[in-house]
Amino acid sequence: MWSTSRQGRVRVDRLAILGCGMIGCSFAAAAKAAGIARSVVGYSKSPTTVNTALELGWIDDGADSAMKAISGADAVLIAVPVSATEALLRMIRHGITDDMLVMDVGSTKRDVAEAAERALVEKASHFVPVHPIAGKDSSGPQAADAALFKGRWAVLTPTVHNDSALVEKAQDLWEAVGAKAIRMSAEEHDSSCAAVSHMPHLISFAYMNSILRQPGSQDLMRLAGTGFRDFTRIAGADPAVWRDIFMANRDELMMQLGLFKQHLAAIEAALMTQNAESAESLISRASTGRRRWAERGAEAMNAPLWEGEEL
Amino acid sequence: MWSTSRQGRVRVDRLAILGCGMIGCSFAAAAKAAGIARSVVGYSKSPTTVNTALELGWIDDGADSAMKAISGADAVLIAVPVSATEALLRMIRHGITDDMLVMDVGSTKRDVAEAAERALVEKASHFVPVHPIAGKDSSGPQAADAALFKGRWAVLTPTVHNDSALVEKAQDLWEAVGAKAIRMSAEEHDSSCAAVSHMPHLISFAYMNSILRQPGSQDLMRLAGTGFRDFTRIAGADPAVWRDIFMANRDELMMQLGLFKQHLAAIEAALMTQNAESAESLISRASTGRRRWAERGAEAMNAPLWEGEEL
Repeated sequence: MWSTSRQGRVRVDRLAILGCGMIGCSFAAAAKAAGIARSVVGYSKSPTTVNTALELGWIDDGADSAMKAISGADAVLIAVPVSATEALLRMIRHGITDDMLVMDVGSTKRDVAEAAERALVEKASHFVPVHPIAGKDSSGPQAADAALFKGRWAVLTPTVHNDSALVEKAQDLWEAVGAKAIRMSAEEHDSSCAAVSHMPHLISFAYMNSILRQPGSQDLMRLAGTGFRDFTRIAGADPAVWRDIFMANRDELMMQLGLFKQHLAAIEAALMTQNAESAESLISRASTGRRRWAERGAEAMNAPLWEGEEL
Repeated sequence: MWSTSRQGRVRVDRLAILGCGMIGCSFAAAAKAAGIARSVVGYSKSPTTVNTALELGWIDDGADSAMKAISGADAVLIAVPVSATEALLRMIRHGITDDMLVMDVGSTKRDVAEAAERALVEKASHFVPVHPIAGKDSSGPQAADAALFKGRWAVLTPTVHNDSALVEKAQDLWEAVGAKAIRMSAEEHDSSCAAVSHMPHLISFAYMNSILRQPGSQDLMRLAGTGFRDFTRIAGADPAVWRDIFMANRDELMMQLGLFKQHLAAIEAALMTQNAESAESLISRASTGRRRWAERGAEAMNAPLWEGEEL
């Protein structure tokens, strides 16, 4: 049952983690560190993963099925690749009890909301879609970190079906593990992520391939410095996760790709025509915008950044 | 006069820095810290810059002209934007004395070598083109750092006109300030930098513009995380410097841009046809290549990285 401590903090009797990877175990660890979960049970398709999570102390109990894991739980976190979420929701549908909160952590939200409606039917009100914007280059329970969500966004995209009390609980939980909770529509979330997260990944993958697949790539890469390192860091991301994200958010992504290609063409035109002035003006816009973003920081992002300012 | 200490280290009686910005002052500071320069004189177009460099102790003397700065110097470092190099070389041509080494730090090398031939004529043998691959987001003498070149490449692109003893001296000097010296042709340097440095900048500028110039960019950017931050870091670079680099290296850059667009189109095709398998395979290639690069590190870059390996 849900209760709120004197400090106004939410508490969970039993938290179930479906998917004991880096994100799932980080949430478990953070919930325990914050003292908001009395016990945590974990389930993963691979028993080895569950055992590792147990050994590392991220979870208190292991379950050999998703249904067993959620039995007696008052909060459930699904932390599996987006393409596996629907099947998992179908498995647990009949185990969802009154007041049970079910959340996910997927990087796309429209598809997950639709999947939940299809899979959960009358239980869809229990499912609150969440995207914690926090990641790591490494994966698995070994890479879990109780501080992963500190100061990072947890985007909640409640649906019209959601019980508003459960949405509140979800928000309280994410804030208790250190995240800054924010609510928006799934559409708004997906457009924003397509622009500021999925596109950089797509571009970084394409760029990396353009280097790797050209003759003499090894020689070319000898001179790669810190710019190359930072620019391509996200190209090392997990292919299955990103395949799912790309497919789930393809409309938004293709729209952003169209815009990007226009701005790429503008710089290309400046090169072709040897128009140094135009090149400088295009670079200057980008540079000024990037510097302002860095200077004003994430907190300032709610205030007008570029409104009425000529870039 | 050149001399080599008992430790085999090169020594300079008087080092002249033409351009007291971040790079010039970092070299001055590193040379003094390494004990290889008895005295350092600096010149900049702006007297304020020279005064700041003096106040910060990076240089011992300030000169109010380039000719005065090189008078009595045995080594000269030109550290100005590439487009200003030729005019500066013309100014100092008649002040270049026997045994005087003149170097630059420009990010493109073919254009600089050609400029040196035009500007220096019979003195072109004294000019050894160098590109230290080290940078910072900030500029000016305030941003100088004696450790800037530590462990970083200093690429020497000697010309056929060069006196080989002067090339040796240049190499010794850069190694003395902590850099790993490497020699290659200007053509090889420019292709490599187009691929691993100039293209990431070009792409990052175009991407940043695509975000900034779309409606609701402020809202989109609210969710920007560490991926966005690292991917766009280089977009904050100096517009005048990058205008020059783009113009000087446009042929190589346009070739690389063509390759990049092909690989971008491959991912776009996978999205358009909803071909998840193809998307995963393209992402996987990029991801595997990037992970190997990170794991094997810069030292391993001389060994075959991908030869005969299926990506």
